[in-house]
Amino acid sequence: MTSRIVDETLGATVFFKCENFQRMGAFKFRGAFNALSKLAPDARARGVVAFSSGNHAQAVALAARMLGVDATIVMPDDAPASKLAATRGYGGRVVTYDRYRENREEIAEGLAAERGSTVVPPYDHPDIIAGQGTAAGELFEQTGPLDSLFVCLGGGGLLSGSALAAKALSPDCAVYGVEPETGNDGQQSLRQGSIVRIPVPETIADGAQTQALGRYTFEIIRRDVADVLTASDDELIDCMRFFATRMKIVVEPTGCLGFAAVRALGPRLAGQRVGVIVSGGNIDGDRMASLLLSRSAPGLLD
Amino acid sequence: MTSRIVDETLGATVFFKCENFQRMGAFKFRGAFNALSKLAPDARARGVVAFSSGNHAQAVALAARMLGVDATIVMPDDAPASKLAATRGYGGRVVTYDRYRENREEIAEGLAAERGSTVVPPYDHPDIIAGQGTAAGELFEQTGPLDSLFVCLGGGGLLSGSALAAKALSPDCAVYGVEPETGNDGQQSLRQGSIVRIPVPETIADGAQTQALGRYTFEIIRRDVADVLTASDDELIDCMRFFATRMKIVVEPTGCLGFAAVRALGPRLAGQRVGVIVSGGNIDGDRMASLLLSRSAPGLLD
Repeated sequence: MTSRIVDETLGATVFFKCENFQRMGAFKFRGAFNALSKLAPDARARGVVAFSSGNHAQAVALAARMLGVDATIVMPDDAPASKLAATRGYGGRVVTYDRYRENREEIAEGLAAERGSTVVPPYDHPDIIAGQGTAAGELFEQTGPLDSLFVCLGGGGLLSGSALAAKALSPDCAVYGVEPETGNDGQQSLRQGSIVRIPVPETIADGAQTQALGRYTFEIIRRDVADVLTASDDELIDCMRFFATRMKIVVEPTGCLGFAAVRALGPRLAGQRVGVIVSGGNIDGDRMASLLLSRSAPGLLD
Repeated sequence: MTSRIVDETLGATVFFKCENFQRMGAFKFRGAFNALSKLAPDARARGVVAFSSGNHAQAVALAARMLGVDATIVMPDDAPASKLAATRGYGGRVVTYDRYRENREEIAEGLAAERGSTVVPPYDHPDIIAGQGTAAGELFEQTGPLDSLFVCLGGGGLLSGSALAAKALSPDCAVYGVEPETGNDGQQSLRQGSIVRIPVPETIADGAQTQALGRYTFEIIRRDVADVLTASDDELIDCMRFFATRMKIVVEPTGCLGFAAVRALGPRLAGQRVGVIVSGGNIDGDRMASLLLSRSAPGLLD
């Protein structure tokens, strides 16, 4: 999608890749489907287990149903109600845990061991990264080369996949990751040159509450990403409002990260051809309403 | 747009024509641009005047700017703030009036007389009707013939234009108008066989608060529309929530009328190929939030 008001305000040409319109409402479907479709028949028969704060859960559940694979999903007990319901709706068995006290990886490994199931990690796997990268790949195929690309950053699956896609299809494009201000482990890791682990960050961007980059994603990000920027929760709400009132689309807080950085850079992007990955649109109606009402209406792109 | 959940729930194939993504956020741009583009050069030089509860105002202001015509817009003083601001933003001069006490037609005629401007009516004009009909025309061109088409009904410009488009492109399609329950003047007019005028209806569907059909629109609707149905404000809110949370699009209350009727008919549409005109998406963020919070979440299509 494009927006005249965005282009006029920034003096740039901005292309939004709208993964809120993707199957199950977020880019995560791409990685999950790619990973599951590569399982050997005997592995498929033993099912899959996934741990996720939300969209990866639905993605694995849906991909599993489409491929005839049993799926068990480990989800935080405070995940948005719509995400818990949707995961169950796609046929996934949901096991909940306390996000601030329990270790989801351990729970998932334990469940997988019971019947030899395959754990489908949310981001740190080559097949996941490759799948997520197809979003940016499609964007470049439609727009041609871009000057910069802004991608939300949680565990780094989407960002590292996007960086690989850019390298192949738009090699001069500067790829930026954008994290919640309170969860800037990626930014810290890039500065320090090694993976920094942080406590679970408190942010409305529930898809970016990861504590650390992965082994694969960090290496790709370190090599191929220009920089990692951050956005505050308030900035995300302002972007959500802009998307709703001007572009008529619903974007979840995590999905606003890329555009929040673009909005903050403002005139520094003048003259550029800019890509923004809008990562997803899964948010409860009540939650969206509460967030919108929590901030008075800002100027259009203030 | 299409929605798997809608099709699965209804057992039908539903096509949404999303005029919330139209220029200025609603179908009204079509009629206004068509009408203004047909003005002779001397009429263009004397400017245009329009009266509107919202979207027609923005439509005339934008079309006028694009065609280099001066535009004065008579708007109710309780119109949504976003619509007042957008109309001014498109370069229109705004004159407000009290919707419950003053006559907007008289105000507009008075302003037009001052400099010989042309009044661009919101619906009852052949050029407006023809312009609005291009939305359904494009839908049929994309989908082929449909069994039924659901269109919101205020003054009848969109509905009569849609009926004409159906007649030409999908002659067996049953075209339905959908009004707010509290503002069913169109339904009453159809039953009675003559235009019924009602007091300004109180409904959240601010684009359908018209008091009576027009001379042209009534004749076309009487001849070519299968029936006029109604929807309650609560049903509109439920549809708005569905559009936001499942289809990730923002639709204003008036734009929900067509789908509200489809949802109410439910299984009676099984097996059909159904069209729905989503007429617009112009709603304040705060207002959308308040409406969403005013109703607890319903079932998906309950």
